[in-house]
Amino acid sequence: MSDIVFRSDMTADLVRCAARDSDVIFAARVSTQGEQSLAAAGTEATERDRGLIRFLMRDRHGSPFEHNSFTFFVEAPIFVFREFMRHRIASYNEESGRYREMRPVFYTPSRERNLVQVGKPGAYEFRPGTDEQHEIVEREIRETATAAFESYQRMLESGVAREVARAVLPLNLYSSMYVTMNARSLMNFLSLRTKREDAAFPSFPQREIEMVAEKMETAFAEAMPLTYDAFNAGGRIAP
Amino acid sequence: MSDIVFRSDMTADLVRCAARDSDVIFAARVSTQGEQSLAAAGTEATERDRGLIRFLMRDRHGSPFEHNSFTFFVEAPIFVFREFMRHRIASYNEESGRYREMRPVFYTPSRERNLVQVGKPGAYEFRPGTDEQHEIVEREIRETATAAFESYQRMLESGVAREVARAVLPLNLYSSMYVTMNARSLMNFLSLRTKREDAAFPSFPQREIEMVAEKMETAFAEAMPLTYDAFNAGGRIAP
Amino acid sequence: MSDIVFRSDMTADLVRCAARDSDVIFAARVSTQGEQSLAAAGTEATERDRGLIRFLMRDRHGSPFEHNSFTFFVEAPIFVFREFMRHRIASYNEESGRYREMRPVFYTPSRERNLVQVGKPGAYEFRPGTDEQHEIVEREIRETATAAFESYQRMLESGVAREVARAVLPLNLYSSMYVTMNARSLMNFLSLRTKREDAAFPSFPQREIEMVAEKMETAFAEAMPLTYDAFNAGGRIAP
Amino acid sequence: MSDIVFRSDMTADLVRCAARDSDVIFAARVSTQGEQSLAAAGTEATERDRGLIRFLMRDRHGSPFEHNSFTFFVEAPIFVFREFMRHRIASYNEESGRYREMRPVFYTPSRERNLVQVGKPGAYEFRPGTDEQHEIVEREIRETATAAFESYQRMLESGVAREVARAVLPLNLYSSMYVTMNARSLMNFLSLRTKREDAAFPSFPQREIEMVAEKMETAFAEAMPLTYDAFNAGGRIAP
Repeated sequence: MSDIVFRSDMTADLVRCAARDSDVIFAARVSTQGEQSLAAAGTEATERDRGLIRFLMRDRHGSPFEHNSFTFFVEAPIFVFREFMRHRIASYNEESGRYREMRPVFYTPSRERNLVQVGKPGAYEFRPGTDEQHEIVEREIRETATAAFESYQRMLESGVAREVARAVLPLNLYSSMYVTMNARSLMNFLSLRTKREDAAFPSFPQREIEMVAEKMETAFAEAMPLTYDAFNAGGRIAP
Repeated sequence: MSDIVFRSDMTADLVRCAARDSDVIFAARVSTQGEQSLAAAGTEATERDRGLIRFLMRDRHGSPFEHNSFTFFVEAPIFVFREFMRHRIASYNEESGRYREMRPVFYTPSRERNLVQVGKPGAYEFRPGTDEQHEIVEREIRETATAAFESYQRMLESGVAREVARAVLPLNLYSSMYVTMNARSLMNFLSLRTKREDAAFPSFPQREIEMVAEKMETAFAEAMPLTYDAFNAGGRIAP
Repeated sequence: MSDIVFRSDMTADLVRCAARDSDVIFAARVSTQGEQSLAAAGTEATERDRGLIRFLMRDRHGSPFEHNSFTFFVEAPIFVFREFMRHRIASYNEESGRYREMRPVFYTPSRERNLVQVGKPGAYEFRPGTDEQHEIVEREIRETATAAFESYQRMLESGVAREVARAVLPLNLYSSMYVTMNARSLMNFLSLRTKREDAAFPSFPQREIEMVAEKMETAFAEAMPLTYDAFNAGGRIAP
Repeated sequence: MSDIVFRSDMTADLVRCAARDSDVIFAARVSTQGEQSLAAAGTEATERDRGLIRFLMRDRHGSPFEHNSFTFFVEAPIFVFREFMRHRIASYNEESGRYREMRPVFYTPSRERNLVQVGKPGAYEFRPGTDEQHEIVEREIRETATAAFESYQRMLESGVAREVARAVLPLNLYSSMYVTMNARSLMNFLSLRTKREDAAFPSFPQREIEMVAEKMETAFAEAMPLTYDAFNAGGRIAP
C-alpha cells in the first residue's frame, strides 16, 4: 500500500470571501439612517468606523455582523469534522464515503502535539509526551490505519458497497468539505475552538480543531480587521 | 403636514450578491471529487451542470444551495415586515423607531390591489373592490395615517421619547431593512410568499409581501438561472 | 366605541413546561457516562448538581441546556412582538390579522413608565415624565387608537378585507401568541431583554419587552432554580 | 480482549415526550381565536381536529408543529451519528471520546443488510450479498475493530491522552447521545432518512440511519397519531 499518506497539518483555505468591515457599517447604520445607510457606508470602512464596531460588539448587537459570508475548503481528520459539525449556524458539504472511494490519507500528531493529559474534567492540562510515547503513537497509528485501509480495499474488491466497507476506517482518516459561515458565526466558532485559559468564559478545545480555527482566524483578521480588533477587545466573545 | 408621502409600491434592491450557479456545483461535487471539486466547477456553470442541479433539487440535497449570499435593501410597510421576519433563516437589520424619528411614508393600495375577500380560511379568494370601496380605503388610510403622524409629532415635541411616541404609528408605515439570505432560504421564502393555487402544496400569501417576493425572485433568476430553472421544474418547493 | 380597552400590563403565562434542572444533568453526563447518564440523573436535581451546572455555564457548554421546553402565552402590543420575533431560536404562532378581526385592546404607558430619554445612542437613559407629559401621552394614545379602530371598522363594514383594513391599526394594538423555547434560548432572550447597565456586556431593552421578559424570568427561575442560579452567577450571559 | 461486543441493531428510546396532537391545535387556533385557543384545544385532540391538521400540513403552516418536544436516547455507530448531526434543527449531547474511555462495542451488518450497490449516483440500488461476501465483511470488521481497539488500549496504557488515542478507532464504534427535536424537525428528519423511492421527492438513506429513523417514527406515530397521519397523507414532506 505504497500510496498511504500520513499528515500532521490541516487545510482551511478561504475559497470565497464576501466580507468587509464596511458590511457591518451599512447594516448597523440602517437603524438610524434608513435608506441612506448604504451610501454612508462607502466601500471601505474607515478608522472612525472602529468606534461603532466596538460599540456593536460590546452591546451585543449581533445582527450587523451577519451580512457577509466566508467559504472555506477544509481538510482535516474525521474526529475534527465531528466536532466542527456540531456548530449549527454554518453550511456544510463534505466528501461522501457513500459516493466515493476514500483516499488513504491519515492524521498522525507532530512532535509539537502534547500527548499527556493531566488534571480533572473541565481543568485538563496537556503536557509534552516522551520520545517513547511519540514512537508508540506514531507506530500504532501507522499500523492501525494501514491495516484498516487494506481491510477496506479487500471488501471493495469483493464487491461490497462503499458505505458498508467504510465502517472499518479510522477516525483519523482525512475528509474534505466546504463550510460557509458569516462573521458572527465565525466569531462564535473561534471563541469556542481556540484556547482561552484565563478568561471569564474559558475554552479548552482539542488541539487539532484549534489548528483549523487558527487558519480561519488568519483569514478573518485579514478580511475584517476592525471587526477582528473589536472581537479581541471584547474578550473574544461573539456578539 | 405637507411632507407626508403615500406609496403603493415596494422596494427590494439587490445591494450585494455573492451567488452563482457554479457555487452549487463546487459544493455538490465535493461529495464525489473531494479536493478537486473547486477546479472542476470553474467560475461559470455550464449547460451540462443543469442536470446535476435538477437532481440535487429533486432529491432534496439542500446544502449545496447554501454557499452563497444575497443582500437586499427592502422598503415596505410594517405589516409586511412582520410577516417577513417570521422567516428565521435570514439576517435582518431594520430601521429603528427607538433610535430614529420615523419619516411619514405610508402604504396605500393601488387600484390593482384586490380588496374583497370571499371564501373560507385556507381557501380565501380575492376579488376587485368597487370604486366606492377604493375611495373609502384611500380616504380612511390617508386620514388615519395623517392624524397618527401628527399625534406622533406632538408627543415628540412635548419631549416624549421616540420609543413611546411611536406607539400610535400605524402598520402601513414604511420601514427599511437589509436582509441577507442564501439561495436555499430564498427559495423557501419564495415558495411560501408567492401564490401557488393549484399546487400539491398551495400557498396564499398576502399580496403586499408577494410584491416584495417578486422583486427578489427577479434578482434570484438573474444571478442563478440554472438553480432558478430547477426550482420551477420541481414545483417551487425548496430543497 | 364603548368596548375599547386600554391596558398597561403584559401577559406571559407559562402554559406548558417540560423543563427541570435534572434535564441538564442527564444531558451533560452522557459525555462521561454514556448509557448510564439517565439513571444517574434521577428525576430531581440535587444540591451536588449545582457545581456541574455552574461549570457548564462558565465553560459555555450550551447544548445540555437545550433538552427542555417552555411554552408561554404572551399578550403584548405589536411593537413588542416586533422585537420579540427577531429572536430566531424560538417557535411562534400569533393571532392573525388576516384570519381574524382584531379586538380593540391598546397599550398605554402606566405612570411608572419613564417617558423622557436623554443621552446618546448606546447610552440612553430614561427619566420620569412630567404630569403634563403623561397627560399628553394618555390623550394622544387614546384618541389616535380610538380613531384608528373606528376607521378599521368602517372599512370592514364596507366589505374591505381584514388584511387590507388592518393597515390603519397602530403599533400599540395588543396581539397574542404562543412562543416555545428551550432554556438556552430563554437565557439568551433574558440576557438581551432585561436591563444590565454596568455589565461587561450591557443591555438596554425597551421597557415594555422587559416587562414580558420579567414574567418569563419568574417562570424560568421556578422551573430550573439551579440553572437560574448559575445564569446569574455567570453574569447573565447565555452559554 | 474478551469483552468486545458486536451489535447489528440500533437504539432510539424515547426518554422524554412532551408532544400531543392537541399542542398543534392550540397553537394553530391562536390565529383565529387569540386568547381562547388554549381552552378550545382541550388536552386531547379529537377526530374533528384531523381536518385542521391535514390542512396545516398541506398548506405548509409549519410553526404549529413546533410547540412540542421529543428527547431520544440513541446508540448507533459513529458513521450514523455523522449523518444525524448534519440535521441542524435538533439539540445534541453525545458521549465524549475526550472525557471518557470508549467501550468496545462495534457494528457489524446483519444477514438482512444488503451489501451490494448497483446503478449510478442518485439511483443506487442495493442487493443482497452472497454468503461469501457476508463472511468477508464479518471477518474484516471483527478483525479490524479488534486490532484497532487493542491499539487504542496500548496507547492509553502508555499514558497517551484519550483524545489522541481515539484516532485509531473505526467508524463502526458505537456512541450514544441524547437528541431533542420538535415534531416539525422530526418530520423533516424522517422525510430524508426513510426510503421513498417513487415519490416526487425521493430519498435514499443509508440503511443504518434508516434503522434509527424507523424507531423514532414508531414513537412519533404513537405520541401524535393525527399529525403522523397527515404527514403520510401529504407524501411525507415536512411542512
